[in-house]
Amino acid sequence: VKTVTKSAVRQPPRGIPLDTIRRLSICLRALNRLKERGIATVNSVELAEPLNFSSEQLRKDLSYFGRFGKAGVGYNVGQLSGKIHSILGTDKVWNVAVLGAGELGTALLGYSGFEDFNLRVCAALDNDPRKIGKTINGVRVSDIAGLSGVVRRNEIKAAILTVTKTAAQEVAQKAVSCGIKAVLNFAPVTLNLPKGVHVSNMDVSCELETLVCRLANCN
Amino acid sequence: VKTVTKSAVRQPPRGIPLDTIRRLSICLRALNRLKERGIATVNSVELAEPLNFSSEQLRKDLSYFGRFGKAGVGYNVGQLSGKIHSILGTDKVWNVAVLGAGELGTALLGYSGFEDFNLRVCAALDNDPRKIGKTINGVRVSDIAGLSGVVRRNEIKAAILTVTKTAAQEVAQKAVSCGIKAVLNFAPVTLNLPKGVHVSNMDVSCELETLVCRLANCN
Repeated sequence: VKTVTKSAVRQPPRGIPLDTIRRLSICLRALNRLKERGIATVNSVELAEPLNFSSEQLRKDLSYFGRFGKAGVGYNVGQLSGKIHSILGTDKVWNVAVLGAGELGTALLGYSGFEDFNLRVCAALDNDPRKIGKTINGVRVSDIAGLSGVVRRNEIKAAILTVTKTAAQEVAQKAVSCGIKAVLNFAPVTLNLPKGVHVSNMDVSCELETLVCRLANCN
Repeated sequence: VKTVTKSAVRQPPRGIPLDTIRRLSICLRALNRLKERGIATVNSVELAEPLNFSSEQLRKDLSYFGRFGKAGVGYNVGQLSGKIHSILGTDKVWNVAVLGAGELGTALLGYSGFEDFNLRVCAALDNDPRKIGKTINGVRVSDIAGLSGVVRRNEIKAAILTVTKTAAQEVAQKAVSCGIKAVLNFAPVTLNLPKGVHVSNMDVSCELETLVCRLANCN
């Protein structure tokens, strides 16, 4: 078995499909469940099938980053988990800010999905005096006017945008001017941000409409 | 200009890429903004560029469904909007249930993104006696034990799943047994549901990790 060193694992993902990264992220979570159950090895079929993708797909995804596992034996759960963390860049902790402490922001401050990753939601910001100073799921809401200082002190690079659709563009621009490089956008608008800023849209209505479209046409 | 009749527009989307459907959905919202501003015609560059995709991509997406627009003039905003509604199957109203009336469910009951589409969140269900009977953003929370009747009476085909990760699989299975055909899943788990049920995962942590991966590797 070829040993893959860290520098060999970490590669610029420019050529790596976004879906590969998503699948590896989902795998990482499944590997954590296996670790909790004390399972030490897993083969690609056992790992991929419950996640609704094929073992061939998983092997192809991993092949971008080197060789993993041992023929006839499978993957060592702990090692593969460590390597995927390294591939994803989540072998170090990333601090994240939630912009907008309304209902959605509050829900995300309590979201249990972050536990499997080294993502730490460490700041919440809002401009509503009734929200500033409140503590939500252990995180104190700060005045968004002080965003720049919060971002600098906590070395925050990524933000989750949960403000209203009318405020979204302005708040996102402010975040970028404060040093935020990645935005997970929940507002149902298309953000226009400088090149080099990564934006991912969690567009609930668009996604629901896509589902409905499949229902409307497939029945 | 070739007139596209409704039956020519509505096609089974099996061969249509999911991303095409997503882009058309985003276009529809942009067309609604143009209509509000009283703009009657738009060309593919004006429509696509603010949405961060190319006019070539938009024309390719639309070409799956027939011919639209007039060379040198562009699209009639109202007509194109109607046609996309028809393509997406949202020319009729779709009733949707929110399963789980916690913080995330509450946030989604007030989400403004549905306004552009014919999606009506008309039911919220939970098993917590403290939530049952409450009204959240105009929707009364019902006991999830009565899901079957709620789904039947409201002709609900799609559900938004916001329950905890430990309850997600069980609640999703129950929803499917009650007639739900499409699930927008916010729980950070992979659901295993029968073939023919459409599942879309709004996996906040996975999406955030994908963003962080790009940050980690691109800097």
